[in-house]
Parts: sequence; C-alpha cells; structure tokens
Amino acid sequence: MTDAPEFGADFREQLLDLLLWRRDVRRFKSEPLPSGTLEHLIGIASLAPSVGLSEPWRFVVVETEAARAGIRACFETCNAAALQSQADDRTALYAKLKLAGLDDAPCQFALFADRETLQGHGLGRLTMPETIDYSAVMAVHTLWLAARAEGLGLGWVSILEPARVAAILEAPPEWTFVGYFCLGWPVADDWVPALERQGWENRRPAASTIYRR
Amino acid sequence: MTDAPEFGADFREQLLDLLLWRRDVRRFKSEPLPSGTLEHLIGIASLAPSVGLSEPWRFVVVETEAARAGIRACFETCNAAALQSQADDRTALYAKLKLAGLDDAPCQFALFADRETLQGHGLGRLTMPETIDYSAVMAVHTLWLAARAEGLGLGWVSILEPARVAAILEAPPEWTFVGYFCLGWPVADDWVPALERQGWENRRPAASTIYRR
Repeated sequence: MTDAPEFGADFREQLLDLLLWRRDVRRFKSEPLPSGTLEHLIGIASLAPSVGLSEPWRFVVVETEAARAGIRACFETCNAAALQSQADDRTALYAKLKLAGLDDAPCQFALFADRETLQGHGLGRLTMPETIDYSAVMAVHTLWLAARAEGLGLGWVSILEPARVAAILEAPPEWTFVGYFCLGWPVADDWVPALERQGWENRRPAASTIYRR
Repeated sequence: MTDAPEFGADFREQLLDLLLWRRDVRRFKSEPLPSGTLEHLIGIASLAPSVGLSEPWRFVVVETEAARAGIRACFETCNAAALQSQADDRTALYAKLKLAGLDDAPCQFALFADRETLQGHGLGRLTMPETIDYSAVMAVHTLWLAARAEGLGLGWVSILEPARVAAILEAPPEWTFVGYFCLGWPVADDWVPALERQGWENRRPAASTIYRR
C-alpha cells in the first residue's frame, strides 16, 4: 500500500451519517455477537492515535458471571449515590433514565490505560501523563465508530467506582480505569441522543464552543 | 431524517482506509485554509459523544502572533526538558524527531474541557469527573478524522506545560487543558506512523492488548 486514498464527497457524507447515527446505546438485543467480533473491532481500534506510539489501551473482556455481577453491583451503588446528588426537581427524571445495558448486552469489556508502559519511551507525556489515558479514549472511540458501521451499538458506563472496578477485574495498579462498555445489537437506531429524547439535556450550538485569542 | 442509514462493505473499507492513513502530522504546507474550514470541522466534532450530553469541549483558536510565540516558547522549554529526560542511548534520535508543526501550520487551536459546565446536570460524572476531559478528547478525535477525509492533517502537541498554556490563552481556571493542535495541508501522506518510520517505536499486535476475566 503506497498510494494515499482520495476521499470523495460521497464518503464524507456517509462518514457524517455515521457520526450522526452513533449513539450511546443502553438497550440491546440479547443475541450474541458472531465469534471474533470484538477481536476484529479491537484490531481496528488499535489504529487509533497514541502518544509517542505508546498504544497504552488494555481491553479486559468481562465474561464470567461473577465479574459481571460485581460490576452490576458497583453500578447500582454508584447510581443510587448519583440519584441522591441530583437536584430535587430532577430526581424523578433521573430515576426514569436507563443508564446502562449491563443486563442485556451480550459483550462487555472494561478499558484501562497503562500509564507505566515502556512502549513509546515516554515520548510526549512528560508534562502530560494523562495523554496515556486520552490515547485509550481514542482507541475506544475508534472501536465505537467501527462498531456502528457494522450496525452494532456501544454504551459507555461511567457510573462506577474506578478502584472497585480495578479490584473486581484484578487490574494491575499502574493501569488507569477509563470506562466500562456494553456492545451488542441495539434495539433501535436513532439520530437524536437518548438524553435529548428523554428531556434531560439539549445540544448547544457548536459555535458557542469556539473562542479566539 | 428518520430512516437509519445502512453502512455497506464499501463504506467500511473506506473507513478503514481513513483510520489507516490518519497520521499525527508535523510537516505542513504554509498555504492557509479556506475561510470557515475550522468552524466546519468543529461543527462535525460536536457530534462526538459526551458524558451526560455535557459537550464540554472548548476550542480556543490561536491567531495572534503573541499567543503563538508564547506557545512556541513553552514547547521549546518543555521539549528541552524532555530531551534531558531521555535515556542516553536515545537522546540523539530524540533530537532528530520533528515533534510539532508550530512554525508551519496555518491553523492552530488549543482544546480545553470545562469541568464545571452545568450542561448535562452532572450526569455520569460523579465518580469519574475525568469523563469531561475524555469527551473533549473524542471531539478532537472526530475532528481529526473529518479533517483527514478532507485531505487535511492534524498534529497533536502535548509537550507543553498545561498551566502555562492556560495562562497564555487566558483560559478560565475551571477548564482542563487537553492539547494543542496544528491543522493544515500535510507535506506528505503516509500509512506508517512517523515514529515508526524514524525508528523510535513499533506497533504491537492488537491481540496483545486483550485480557479476559
């Protein structure tokens, strides 16, 4: 492979569709994924950028019933605390939201970032070690887009206590917990975020995020 | 728009090409970008996932010569320190790497994440406030891919002192500095990472990043 591909307007339009229709999915069909699906997607995810070519992403596939039950219990504790922390006028709405697909999703994995990896020889991360975590985030974002292009949905669960997740999954102490993910066939597709459909929050105009110096 | 798009094998192949040919670009043509290019790309970036629909990304376009000179000086100080921190047998190679396109890139911006944004009403980030930063990372990663689909290159500069960058750009104290970015037409395209071409580091097999519990 030596000639750079030319991307045309058709591809850009489809890419925009992909971004528009990528959702944080919480309702999954229980149908299992074809064997090798996650491994295929992790292969694509590994094309993500990483600081100093450190490739610090560590995917922990959560398969045992004991590990899944531990994560589910952790989520329930944290979610109850989050409900308590909401303003009084929003607790009823919060309680109605479905915030995880832990009971349905056939495939589940945790993502960690190895802050101590020797790969990359420390390049680019002396002043900003958090770029290791950011690299892992870009890997799972890549996986998310590749999954959507196959019709699969991904849901990011962040209502968890990182130290408890690390203990449940026996992660080495030098790994940062980035997130827990549910993967499967979505019950429905939508181009409007679930939190917008459910009246939790609306999008802001992109122009309002731009400043000039 | 009500019917979900179907993505076919052709699109998936082109998406894979996009991921394969996305580079961290450090050599730019000085040719300016068409007016509105960055704003268009930020519009696409705002389709990225964000915790609780918080959309915490804040793009600071760096236009003045004074601000650019401040960033360049910050990079030079940090890069000199990073060179010192390298193992003896790698300093010569480190010194040869081109680690930023600050002198050439026609368009430059910093990315911050607003940890105090009220948008999203705190949903999903009580135990993991760093998901605000991760959301901003996914926005710039989206921008990166959309830029590549237009033939543009992006370079991420992380060899900077966050507090100094925030001071130079007069960022509010509640914003986390995520990264500084150079955008422009790349001098060359490649599907091999620059750090691999220059003998700094090689990629690892994706399978070696997978664990099971």
